[in-house]
Amino acid sequence: MPAQRALILFAHGARDPQWAEPFQRLAALLQDRQTESRVSLAFLELMTPSLADCVAEQVAAGITHITIVPAFMARGSHLRRDLPLLIEELAARHPQIELQVTAALGEAEPVLAAMADWIASQ
Amino acid sequence: MPAQRALILFAHGARDPQWAEPFQRLAALLQDRQTESRVSLAFLELMTPSLADCVAEQVAAGITHITIVPAFMARGSHLRRDLPLLIEELAARHPQIELQVTAALGEAEPVLAAMADWIASQ
Repeated sequence: MPAQRALILFAHGARDPQWAEPFQRLAALLQDRQTESRVSLAFLELMTPSLADCVAEQVAAGITHITIVPAFMARGSHLRRDLPLLIEELAARHPQIELQVTAALGEAEPVLAAMADWIASQ
Repeated sequence: MPAQRALILFAHGARDPQWAEPFQRLAALLQDRQTESRVSLAFLELMTPSLADCVAEQVAAGITHITIVPAFMARGSHLRRDLPLLIEELAARHPQIELQVTAALGEAEPVLAAMADWIASQ
């Protein structure tokens, strides 16, 4: 049986529901590109689902490989301290799945280049 | 005399000095592309300079047009409430300059597309 893969965009969360809109657009873009993966959103705080709930849902659906993409501009304490603790708990709770965490979106060279191009066009 | 232009990347700020690193890389990329503009970084909180101090510095240097680029993933209360108040204060303090505010980086279509491409390549 092939690996069942999921991709989770992990964002900070905010009180304003409209805040989530760009992440929802990104998830839709990704789902178009990655039809073999289940794409979903999870949040550190103020919005749901939490990362733990989102991972539990993927595991219940038979997912075996999960890639977590921090949808943050930069690596502050949320990614240096909070996320590693969450990952440690998830690994202990779901020892049968493979968890991978990428760099933060705002740190990726091609993303920075696209930002610079877009700003230069304003 | 041609307009003297500045571009300010306006980021949230964090306690960890390393957090600013992707914004510094972005500012350097931009300065390479926009040699006719002064590119600088300003922060909402926890880091310096503040937006007010950064704008005052540009004005003192003879800048007449300032473009402020919110280096945020999405528009939450910082961009819907805090930034408009800051802009209002700046416009009152420096009526001689032209201030422009762009969309947030994380909302720009080409940036979202680059994020999706990069994630798909992981």
